[in-house]
Amino acid sequence: MKILLIGGCGFIGSHVVDSLLAQGFQIRVYDRRPELFREPVPGVEYVSGDIGDISLVYEAMSGVDAIIHLASTTVPATSNLDPVADITGNLVSMVRLLEMMRATGLKKIVYLSSGGTVYGPPETDPVAESHPLRPISSYGIVKVAIENYLHMEHKLHGVQHVILRASNPYGPRQGHTGIQGIIGTHLWRVARGEPVEVWGDGSVVRDFIHVRDLADLCVRAVQSDVAGCYNAGSGSGTSVAEIVASIDRIVQARGGAPVRPLYKPGRNFDVPRVVLDITRARTELGWAPRIGLDEGIAESWDWVRSRS
Amino acid sequence: MKILLIGGCGFIGSHVVDSLLAQGFQIRVYDRRPELFREPVPGVEYVSGDIGDISLVYEAMSGVDAIIHLASTTVPATSNLDPVADITGNLVSMVRLLEMMRATGLKKIVYLSSGGTVYGPPETDPVAESHPLRPISSYGIVKVAIENYLHMEHKLHGVQHVILRASNPYGPRQGHTGIQGIIGTHLWRVARGEPVEVWGDGSVVRDFIHVRDLADLCVRAVQSDVAGCYNAGSGSGTSVAEIVASIDRIVQARGGAPVRPLYKPGRNFDVPRVVLDITRARTELGWAPRIGLDEGIAESWDWVRSRS
Repeated sequence: MKILLIGGCGFIGSHVVDSLLAQGFQIRVYDRRPELFREPVPGVEYVSGDIGDISLVYEAMSGVDAIIHLASTTVPATSNLDPVADITGNLVSMVRLLEMMRATGLKKIVYLSSGGTVYGPPETDPVAESHPLRPISSYGIVKVAIENYLHMEHKLHGVQHVILRASNPYGPRQGHTGIQGIIGTHLWRVARGEPVEVWGDGSVVRDFIHVRDLADLCVRAVQSDVAGCYNAGSGSGTSVAEIVASIDRIVQARGGAPVRPLYKPGRNFDVPRVVLDITRARTELGWAPRIGLDEGIAESWDWVRSRS
Repeated sequence: MKILLIGGCGFIGSHVVDSLLAQGFQIRVYDRRPELFREPVPGVEYVSGDIGDISLVYEAMSGVDAIIHLASTTVPATSNLDPVADITGNLVSMVRLLEMMRATGLKKIVYLSSGGTVYGPPETDPVAESHPLRPISSYGIVKVAIENYLHMEHKLHGVQHVILRASNPYGPRQGHTGIQGIIGTHLWRVARGEPVEVWGDGSVVRDFIHVRDLADLCVRAVQSDVAGCYNAGSGSGTSVAEIVASIDRIVQARGGAPVRPLYKPGRNFDVPRVVLDITRARTELGWAPRIGLDEGIAESWDWVRSRS
């Protein structure tokens, strides 16, 4: 079975490559750039291109049995700065992709959505897939619109879509841009001897998932014949302050200096608590997250130190 | 108080003009074309332009206190033929409009959404505003995305938005394009001596609202200080077969020939029954539909005959 892995050179994509290879899949990666932290992986076919380049995407679809789509041209924290770019870069390109799938008869797609933004301020704890979708960022609004086009394509043209609403993935190979992924951002700052920025009082609670657990779920999703939305998180919540404490413990246990938090004002788009209910992925996809947070942070710290 | 009425030359827009004038509002209409069935209305300022023409829209916003936005570049029945045009024509232009409202400090907008498409196949009868949004047409998906941007703008920047999820408006000045509005389409066909097309067996039930009742609600919405979504229908359901029977009765009572139905296959995007729960608009906006269906159809028929 051959997979077109769109966004396969990103942080999550690089781990999906590993999981797919381990399961014996053939892989064609489509991405704008090569991986940041690895040479091209032997046995993987790479196509370099933009998701908006229709003819190149069309060509890359040739001979594949399924698509795993992880690419996003925006991140939650900055999508509101240019919603039109968010819409044209992500939504329009997905609609085009679905049109091409219809034209070629390709029926299977796994799409990475966002458990942290599609629901908006949660009314329940944890948040199940049936929770109302009330996004308050352009990123979340566009994800919801993409999900709706996927549902429509399923309903009208029989596309078998699996939407994974991921929480906050972390782990080795997470970049240090500072605009997405607090664990990675913190670890890189600590490695450079800088304080870690905490927005608000540190009480904000999020659901963190190790990137290999998420990659494992992507592979299960592409192998299964289910369709619909699945939360992809750990199912439990950790505060930003607890993350800092955990990093501090791990760094000091390995002989590093204490972590220095730098408190900044809270951001108006941060909701106090988002924890995902992952019952559906557990029961329908036979999946469970396996890597604990301390273990995962320790592994990530070792990787960051090896790179810095 | 001066209103910028975007799409003010359309079927609904022309009646909103009448209602606003009756209430003493100043009006600037922005539309691509003049009204189809009337000369420009004295006392109304008209600006001719496309909703995608940013600088012209910006100019048209000058000196106004509120916007009523009724324009759509697509209709439900054909939006799936070109979803990208739907997205760029409607969604992108709305995001731009909200950016301009933020830049100019304009806080009030009434937006015409779609009670027939945003909910998807209803799980309740009638359908309240809290019903999940599961649209299965591009038209509905784009309306949901626009609604979400409006909510976000309310939450983050204090825009006071009223979203009216209209059911199926009908009444005088409804066009005869045949792709939207079955009552108008039927009446024009009868006037031309043609059979009326019925998709499926005629059992499909919809909620029809007289356009003057809807225009009245638009004016109440612009006058109120509420924010959020309001269903805008009659609150009761009528089957397509009942509509045909009503038209037949009215036409024959006025000396016309019996109406000939022409049955066509059902369409995969037609859900069996959509009736809106209008409790929220009744209680929070003090509004109620006043024109009964037979009365409204009779008035519409008289108008069609006067034009044909």
